[in-house]
Amino acid sequence: MAEQHSNILLLRKLGIDTHTENMIFVRADSQVCRSEGFTASTRVTIHFGTRSIVATLIVITSRLLSEGEASLSENAFESLQVQEGDRVTVEHLRPIVSFRDVRAKMFDKKFNAQALQGIIADITNGYYSHIEIAAFVTACSGDNLALDEVIYLTKAMIDSGSRLSWHKPMIIDKHCVGGLPGNRTTPIIVPIIAAAGLTIPKTSSRAITSPAGTADVVETMTPVNLTLAQIRHVIRKEGGCMVWGGAVKLSPADDLIIYVEKALDVDSAGQMIASVLSKKAAAGSTHTIIDIPVGDTAKVRSKEEAFLLEYYFRAVGLSIGLEVEVLITDGSQPVGRGIGPVLEAKDVLSVLRNEPEAPADLKERSLKLAGLMLETAGVTDKGKGLAHARQLLVSGAALDKFYKICEAQGGFHEPVTAALSHDVLAGEQGTITRIDNRKLAKVAKLAGAPKSPGAGLHFKAPLGTRVQKGQPLFTIYSESEGELAYALNYLHNTNHVLKIDPKR
Amino acid sequence: MAEQHSNILLLRKLGIDTHTENMIFVRADSQVCRSEGFTASTRVTIHFGTRSIVATLIVITSRLLSEGEASLSENAFESLQVQEGDRVTVEHLRPIVSFRDVRAKMFDKKFNAQALQGIIADITNGYYSHIEIAAFVTACSGDNLALDEVIYLTKAMIDSGSRLSWHKPMIIDKHCVGGLPGNRTTPIIVPIIAAAGLTIPKTSSRAITSPAGTADVVETMTPVNLTLAQIRHVIRKEGGCMVWGGAVKLSPADDLIIYVEKALDVDSAGQMIASVLSKKAAAGSTHTIIDIPVGDTAKVRSKEEAFLLEYYFRAVGLSIGLEVEVLITDGSQPVGRGIGPVLEAKDVLSVLRNEPEAPADLKERSLKLAGLMLETAGVTDKGKGLAHARQLLVSGAALDKFYKICEAQGGFHEPVTAALSHDVLAGEQGTITRIDNRKLAKVAKLAGAPKSPGAGLHFKAPLGTRVQKGQPLFTIYSESEGELAYALNYLHNTNHVLKIDPKR
Repeated sequence: MAEQHSNILLLRKLGIDTHTENMIFVRADSQVCRSEGFTASTRVTIHFGTRSIVATLIVITSRLLSEGEASLSENAFESLQVQEGDRVTVEHLRPIVSFRDVRAKMFDKKFNAQALQGIIADITNGYYSHIEIAAFVTACSGDNLALDEVIYLTKAMIDSGSRLSWHKPMIIDKHCVGGLPGNRTTPIIVPIIAAAGLTIPKTSSRAITSPAGTADVVETMTPVNLTLAQIRHVIRKEGGCMVWGGAVKLSPADDLIIYVEKALDVDSAGQMIASVLSKKAAAGSTHTIIDIPVGDTAKVRSKEEAFLLEYYFRAVGLSIGLEVEVLITDGSQPVGRGIGPVLEAKDVLSVLRNEPEAPADLKERSLKLAGLMLETAGVTDKGKGLAHARQLLVSGAALDKFYKICEAQGGFHEPVTAALSHDVLAGEQGTITRIDNRKLAKVAKLAGAPKSPGAGLHFKAPLGTRVQKGQPLFTIYSESEGELAYALNYLHNTNHVLKIDPKR
Repeated sequence: MAEQHSNILLLRKLGIDTHTENMIFVRADSQVCRSEGFTASTRVTIHFGTRSIVATLIVITSRLLSEGEASLSENAFESLQVQEGDRVTVEHLRPIVSFRDVRAKMFDKKFNAQALQGIIADITNGYYSHIEIAAFVTACSGDNLALDEVIYLTKAMIDSGSRLSWHKPMIIDKHCVGGLPGNRTTPIIVPIIAAAGLTIPKTSSRAITSPAGTADVVETMTPVNLTLAQIRHVIRKEGGCMVWGGAVKLSPADDLIIYVEKALDVDSAGQMIASVLSKKAAAGSTHTIIDIPVGDTAKVRSKEEAFLLEYYFRAVGLSIGLEVEVLITDGSQPVGRGIGPVLEAKDVLSVLRNEPEAPADLKERSLKLAGLMLETAGVTDKGKGLAHARQLLVSGAALDKFYKICEAQGGFHEPVTAALSHDVLAGEQGTITRIDNRKLAKVAKLAGAPKSPGAGLHFKAPLGTRVQKGQPLFTIYSESEGELAYALNYLHNTNHVLKIDPKR
């Protein structure tokens, strides 16, 4: 284009972190704003060499930038792979063709395979704004996706990212539908399964709105931010890994969709199933176990809901050649005692080390899931998996494999809790009859988890515990007085975190 | 709260314009980020005295701000009514209770009156992010709103803003569903109706994605940014006004909803009806005429669609005590000759001044609508309105009233077209058989409309015109060579703006 010279801008760093949404900052009186008719919040394409990203334009009305300069948000610098001093070209975003299909869905037209391929490809390329992703998420929410649409969505997500292959007939994996604080079975299950001689290339996520993701927990003991080549090395050497999935980009559109879902606090069953199964398939799994904890403050609140999810998981799995087994588990209270990366890692190590005070619930849940995986993989006969898993744990084989995997990932180190602590005491005598998982998670987050890995809480009063007045219910850990005060302040102003029945 | 002192930040101006979404900029290493656990994109409440707004938090990782400082986006400075040097308090946004009802709607539960009251109140208060508004818009899109829900939404919107009352039995108004470039009947109709002795407190919008809104056009001739007191004065004096509705805040939630609808390029019939009728009711109207242009590149593309809209408009109007008449008109081509604020104002003046070259289509449309309004208001018998309207126009009474209204609004001045112009010529001989309104509007916008009021285009080849090769089809007006080049470049790369049939 002839007039393109006026669209070239020199990049300057301003150090503005806008999280996942790319932004470009341009002077209001710049040639590019005038000639292109750009106004604040316009969506633009930014080119650098052969690379390009889409960003929202923010107009600078002050002297933060000089004539001919522009700045990008930190994430945009990263995704366009540019630095201060580079020159970029800015132009209007062409209309996003695939969004027509989102509009059609709003008018109750069903998605076909091609529509979802287009939408997921465009989200992957960063063409959708958060507003547009919110519309897509909403159009897919509730029971608005039929089984065939979930299958198309899953396949589109698989096609949009990297795909691993291991040249083995059996690759087994597990996933937990989540929402249960402290439910950190992965770092226990992976070494058991790998110790049994199976291949388990486990990728996990970091916390988005919870006090800890599995990747955050494992990171307190060993590096998780591995490249694809490093993961291959770990798997070849040890048969299992425990890494952060984000670095591998198995389903890049999914991260953006999940970000918006969390912002809306909306779960769409169809989206969730496509998200989980596409990542498993992309990681090269042939078999996967899905753990669905059910409880009234867990993510899935009723057995009926869990049964419906089971049907979808199995049917979609079938269509993409992935064998799925579902285990519906108790989701009425936290698992283990720690909530927060280090505190959960301590529970994990305690189980692996067969310490007598290891949390029995975390241990038994892990063994049950590992046992089912061993049976599914044909390592043992039906009904024999649990005992075999227990034997691998009790014998120390799992701990040994855990250290070896950590070694292969970059070395093991002992997790360290935060410096400050505060005991929260029972205000009366009685029996614990109800626990609000969401509120406990909130306390751990206010105390600093997961940003401060050592922060969080250590829970001492599971359901049915008989407590005396003044007995510690849980201990809050924090790196700073301010964060500790903030968690305590929240507790002061909130009811029903735990319910103590004085008559029982 | 005890720890609130750490949440106090000193405001500095950075001059960052983020359009309609409020943002606050805070240092990553600030006490407030650390103690509150704020991360980029968190939604926060900002307090100043008794006022508060909600904003998205952007984290600054550089030295743009000093310790203890924060900045706001320009619009946030404005809506919180603060300035550089003021101290604000920042805290986490409490969960938005009304969003539960949006989530329930996603799961196909119907809205009741209370739900929509809550949602609209929260949007009015700025509690909803763009992502959340996008979810609301999507949940209401297509035919997802039943008649009773549209009525609840309309009433909620009326309750959310200012409401005018005129202490007169008959207040008449008009609205055009839009999408037709140059269709600027309002500044012709208002003086005719006011000259007939009726009261017409007309508020109009500015362009969001079009080359000109009615307020932009009128502003090239007289001030439109009037306060409520000023509007009352104009109406008392002249019986009619032509002002920008945004300053009066008749339906503040609506502006945010429309912004997101435009970003998604989604029209929801229910939202649109609630938006239009709530503003009419809030402006104190008792009767209103709705003009629905139908054409395959207009907003409403089929008669069937127009009939359904008519039903909704009339039924919702009935429920809020507003009498609605609908006129379905031809939307196959631009109206008048100008597209862009000044160029459209020139057409308007040409009609009001009874110039022989005045665009007949704009004149006849305006007279037809004005005539229907005179009949609806009982000024004339049925069938006599058009002649009476024509008499008021031809006699010069309308022009006289127009000048008086402008005088009352702050004075009349002659609109001036942009300095640069370029004729676009017919590439072949033939007859104009099709016009793409959307593409013509795009050319006018690229040339600078509405930001440069004098920019746009003057259209010379309506449907059925027989043109010779080299004959001008339209003239582009622009304030700068760059913008002109940009419009021409678009024309070079686009087909079918006009279709010339060489055989006719």
